[in-house]
Amino acid sequence: MAGYVPGEQINDPGTVKLNTNENPYPPSPRVVVAIQQALTGDILRKYPEPLGDHFRAAASAVLGVPADWIVIGNGSDDLLTVLTRSFVPQGGRMASLTPSYVLYKSLAEIQGATLVSVPFTQYWTPPKPWPVREAHLTLIANPNSPSGTNLRVDALAAFADEVAGPLVIDEAYADFAECNGLSLVGKIPNVIVTRSMSKYYALAGVRFGFAIAEPGLIRELNKVKDSYNADALSLAAATAAILDRAYYADVRSRMIATRGRMTVALTELGFHVTPSQANFVWCRREDRPVKPIYEALKAKDILIRYMSYPGFGDGLRMSVGTPQEVERLLHALRAIV
Amino acid sequence: MAGYVPGEQINDPGTVKLNTNENPYPPSPRVVVAIQQALTGDILRKYPEPLGDHFRAAASAVLGVPADWIVIGNGSDDLLTVLTRSFVPQGGRMASLTPSYVLYKSLAEIQGATLVSVPFTQYWTPPKPWPVREAHLTLIANPNSPSGTNLRVDALAAFADEVAGPLVIDEAYADFAECNGLSLVGKIPNVIVTRSMSKYYALAGVRFGFAIAEPGLIRELNKVKDSYNADALSLAAATAAILDRAYYADVRSRMIATRGRMTVALTELGFHVTPSQANFVWCRREDRPVKPIYEALKAKDILIRYMSYPGFGDGLRMSVGTPQEVERLLHALRAIV
Repeated sequence: MAGYVPGEQINDPGTVKLNTNENPYPPSPRVVVAIQQALTGDILRKYPEPLGDHFRAAASAVLGVPADWIVIGNGSDDLLTVLTRSFVPQGGRMASLTPSYVLYKSLAEIQGATLVSVPFTQYWTPPKPWPVREAHLTLIANPNSPSGTNLRVDALAAFADEVAGPLVIDEAYADFAECNGLSLVGKIPNVIVTRSMSKYYALAGVRFGFAIAEPGLIRELNKVKDSYNADALSLAAATAAILDRAYYADVRSRMIATRGRMTVALTELGFHVTPSQANFVWCRREDRPVKPIYEALKAKDILIRYMSYPGFGDGLRMSVGTPQEVERLLHALRAIV
Repeated sequence: MAGYVPGEQINDPGTVKLNTNENPYPPSPRVVVAIQQALTGDILRKYPEPLGDHFRAAASAVLGVPADWIVIGNGSDDLLTVLTRSFVPQGGRMASLTPSYVLYKSLAEIQGATLVSVPFTQYWTPPKPWPVREAHLTLIANPNSPSGTNLRVDALAAFADEVAGPLVIDEAYADFAECNGLSLVGKIPNVIVTRSMSKYYALAGVRFGFAIAEPGLIRELNKVKDSYNADALSLAAATAAILDRAYYADVRSRMIATRGRMTVALTELGFHVTPSQANFVWCRREDRPVKPIYEALKAKDILIRYMSYPGFGDGLRMSVGTPQEVERLLHALRAIV
């Protein structure tokens, strides 16, 4: 198999890095304090809490779900792996819409399963027929990448009712969206929501995610995950982050404002921009190929993501940066197009 | 399935915790400095190095193997999972000796595979017949837990030549032993060595491990592991730790001296102590059941591990603590037995 290829990780401070949807702002200062407080010989040398009880208590208070509905992960990718291993036999079937998160295909391949990828309509809505009723596991990224579009909660509920296996709503970007599927957990027993702390919480370097599901499911997922899948420092960081709601609400406001300005400016430059509920925008053009635009930006140390999907075509995904980064991007694009 | 049950994690500073083989000494002070230096907004908010290039360069220099022979893990348990997923089909066969690391059974169960557990002889040597030639994956913990015994390198080489699939030498405790299997990697193409930074490097809270194998194998394992399985802070910690050889050589000397004193004192108290090359000792008794001893110690806030294996019997595994902790353990045991 080919393996999943993550976006380029370049650490040159001169580079404008808008290719992997990292938060352009640093995490809450309370995160740094929490990690510093955890930097004791005793915490480093001892095994961490296997189930992350302190984090689960904090997340429970913030999200309004019981603590035993939550399972912790070494990033939400870890939980997508755990979910695949829990529900999909070798030779089994997974289902997702496409274009979407490319990792789903790798997860299916590693499991020896098939991913049934059903193309979105041109308006990024689910096609007919959808969902795939007999799938062992259905994965919906919501908001979706690369489109930034977000399906409505009533549509998700209808899909969950129709599928035989669990419906995983991959909400890595949900904190930037107008609505999310959390209220479905518990109401519909086969709904599982996964969350990442890499995007909204600006903790991609720390690797932490979690999933919310009925406690009977959580109990089984806890058997499949590595006993100590989250380390003591990431648990401290994630707990401090999820509790600092004011800091992140402010970051969110700024990013949504920048996203709006990017959408307008890119449209003025001749891009077809899909209205986004995530921290990136998806842009296509009819008048010229977009890959040279990606390459010209890269030559100017501005990194975005060129993405091409068989049968669908290609486009550019640009993360929402700081106003200064976006200004540099737009300035470069004006010269290129 | 039942799931793997890790040792109790109790954070009461009054408890003497000798149950999960943590290092009783803190990690190198350079580890704390390295983590503090990595505590920047930019490092926290950005994805870490997917393959851990800085760590691999450091480990390469220390171990004398090329960097592309190394794959990083979120603890060595993560790598045992990656190895299982890479080599064992559903319905496949894994093989190990028993009693050994109980996780191997859980890994097989999660994969839908069978673990062929072949009992050690009473002297903790491999029985005849061994190994299981047709196993998709053979796992040998060396030094072994709970025994602390260590098979010779020539015996490991002979097993590797006989088995059809890879031979994983799980060297979580090898840094405390007289010899290890690292020299076999590359010489025998199916040998894979896994290492943990939880024991010798006193970083159980940080979750970091790595495996060493031929570069062709490493390339494939890198496709199966999560892209960002090790976080930026654990990478910084692990890199600083592996480079501080003097600090850890000193810790090792102290622990080996304490292990010797424990062995003598426990023998004097009537325990049959297996000579250990790890950071724990395995103790049995003929004159009385050992579970009440475990319970009596627990009542005195001294935590060791009671382990019982079907068809083999039970015993007590006691981690090597500080001289003060061991003194408290021995004092309590004198009163109990």
